[in-house]
Amino acid sequence: MSEAPMSSSLHTAPEENVVTDDVFRKAMRELAGGVAVVTVGHGGDRTGFTATSVSSLSAEPPRLLVSINRASSSWETLERYRNFGVSVLRVGHQGLADRFAGLGGLRGSERYRGANWMKLSDDGAEILQDALAGIDCVVEEILQLHGHAIVVGRVRGIRIQAEGQPLLYWQGAYRQIAQREISR
Amino acid sequence: MSEAPMSSSLHTAPEENVVTDDVFRKAMRELAGGVAVVTVGHGGDRTGFTATSVSSLSAEPPRLLVSINRASSSWETLERYRNFGVSVLRVGHQGLADRFAGLGGLRGSERYRGANWMKLSDDGAEILQDALAGIDCVVEEILQLHGHAIVVGRVRGIRIQAEGQPLLYWQGAYRQIAQREISR
Repeated sequence: MSEAPMSSSLHTAPEENVVTDDVFRKAMRELAGGVAVVTVGHGGDRTGFTATSVSSLSAEPPRLLVSINRASSSWETLERYRNFGVSVLRVGHQGLADRFAGLGGLRGSERYRGANWMKLSDDGAEILQDALAGIDCVVEEILQLHGHAIVVGRVRGIRIQAEGQPLLYWQGAYRQIAQREISR
Repeated sequence: MSEAPMSSSLHTAPEENVVTDDVFRKAMRELAGGVAVVTVGHGGDRTGFTATSVSSLSAEPPRLLVSINRASSSWETLERYRNFGVSVLRVGHQGLADRFAGLGGLRGSERYRGANWMKLSDDGAEILQDALAGIDCVVEEILQLHGHAIVVGRVRGIRIQAEGQPLLYWQGAYRQIAQREISR
């Protein structure tokens, strides 16, 4: 609650109730997320991006969701190949997450350098060998909405290596989980 | 890599490569998520559910995504009212998260008991007063896909109370973030 005198609340014009992008970003920073790299394309035509927006949609059949900015180079590649990989990152992958987020300015297949990749299907995108989980998806549906696209992926391959701690993003920084579980 | 003798890999029939729902769930358990409660409806007609699937779609204008099982009672209420609230939970909200996840069998407005709620708009759903962030949304678009729906919400109100630690869900348990940031 504001500590300003009550009269100041009278200055709250309707247009001030509009949510600005700054306020929205601040609210979204409160939403912690596991960090994943979404990979698309092949060979020299590979690229990808860092996402905290991957989520499960249904288990039977297995489907997941990811959203993507249609101004990104990954979007064009994803649309062309119609498949993608998801690598769930662990603590230690901060550099990789930065690279796929575009920090340092590396583009396309340059972002893959210095890490080991593998495929779960012949025509699938590459997944990170030491990801907590690597998931191979075929695009099943795309909802284009203004500048963005919501992509539904049908899962056709999975590799799990559950030893390790997940890499988190919260309030603009990489974080890790506290060792101790908390009680319900 | 498997330690089984090579000959055993010959038993891998194509149908065994199909990803089962169990394997998919195991992979998704590796994806840590901030926990939120999504609220819908009004008065005795209120209900809601716990979600780790809320994510930002665009900042200009502010929009977020949430997916929902269409077999749930919240779906029918959401479709009718065409708006919803998102409350980003903090450590200490485990009981509330369980209740909105259906544990204990409480339904509808009973799930709201024992917590304090408020509205950010006259016709909006209620948000939790001590959420890390409370977000008031109008439904902008719905993609119905088999048994599920992907809902795009246009954000029209936000309340942020950033003091506190986010409640996480990882590997089937509530967790919290380690105090220390980790280096890039």
